[in-house]
Amino acid sequence: MTTFTIIGTGNMANAIGGVLADGGSSVTYVAKHQVGVAPVDGDVVVLAVPFPAVDSILDAYADALAGKVVVDITNPLNFETFDSLVVPAGSSAAAEIQARIPSAHVLKAFNTNFAATLGAKKVGELTTTVLVAGDSAEAKATLVAAVEAGGLEAIDAGALARAHELEAIGFAQLTLAVSEKIGWTGGFGITR
Amino acid sequence: MTTFTIIGTGNMANAIGGVLADGGSSVTYVAKHQVGVAPVDGDVVVLAVPFPAVDSILDAYADALAGKVVVDITNPLNFETFDSLVVPAGSSAAAEIQARIPSAHVLKAFNTNFAATLGAKKVGELTTTVLVAGDSAEAKATLVAAVEAGGLEAIDAGALARAHELEAIGFAQLTLAVSEKIGWTGGFGITR
Repeated sequence: MTTFTIIGTGNMANAIGGVLADGGSSVTYVAKHQVGVAPVDGDVVVLAVPFPAVDSILDAYADALAGKVVVDITNPLNFETFDSLVVPAGSSAAAEIQARIPSAHVLKAFNTNFAATLGAKKVGELTTTVLVAGDSAEAKATLVAAVEAGGLEAIDAGALARAHELEAIGFAQLTLAVSEKIGWTGGFGITR
Repeated sequence: MTTFTIIGTGNMANAIGGVLADGGSSVTYVAKHQVGVAPVDGDVVVLAVPFPAVDSILDAYADALAGKVVVDITNPLNFETFDSLVVPAGSSAAAEIQARIPSAHVLKAFNTNFAATLGAKKVGELTTTVLVAGDSAEAKATLVAAVEAGGLEAIDAGALARAHELEAIGFAQLTLAVSEKIGWTGGFGITR
């Protein structure tokens, strides 16, 4: 059984935690006001917060996260303009986070999924698929197994460098939803 | 009726042309050996060739393409490494093409679709969706209507700047197929 600590208690945190708990993983949450106070005991720590909130979490838990699997779910958009990212061109939030905590095994995951499609486990008629990128094959296998146990599909999407592409997918999907071209229960589904 | 000239006669050219012809559009093709010789008469010109072949087409037809709708379908990958794009970070093939032919109305489209999903008009159980980005609302509406008439879904995915994200989606999907995580008849489908 994999133990997860989810930092955050919003829609995405709850949806991710629900899937993992359904699959038999142990899940504990750290709420915003507990950051820096509550322990991060899990083998895997999910940063289920908006990108601007990540920095202070890394400040608070840099030592605690050393050697752990850390899952970045963020879409680092400029949410005022919906026209650009707030990370350097060609980079990614995940790469920035990995640079801050070099001994952690950072994974990019869940950023291409809306909360509703995690909760329903469906995108339309398709089972929801979680794309996972990262440089540690072992860390990816752990997360993929936990997600699949929870009734979703999960695919190893390659090295952490592919987080750039996963964040672009998240960006495109968010702009389609905000412009009402798709609904928040829809979006990209994957057929193998 | 919209008239299309498709430059290229490969799998993607034929799949796109088939959809457009099914929808009642007039479609003519320009084969590689005819580039610079054959006319590009269509209201819309589809550059259905690999990215490295685009430059010589623009050299041959720069004047002929002035004022036309030009559709870029390329995924400008480094196909030796499958690890990077061959356009500057943050840019896109579509933006590079627009810069070469500033008076044309460049659209990005079809690069997130595999040829087989255009031919079958399905990604798994979902109707295939073509994402279209560009700065001309009229040009996008023309292409969207022609694609929908051919039995596919089409979505206006925003300004030409979003070609960066569409190319990232194409990149991610190609790497998943090449690494056999998905099949060439599968990939990203869209639920509204």
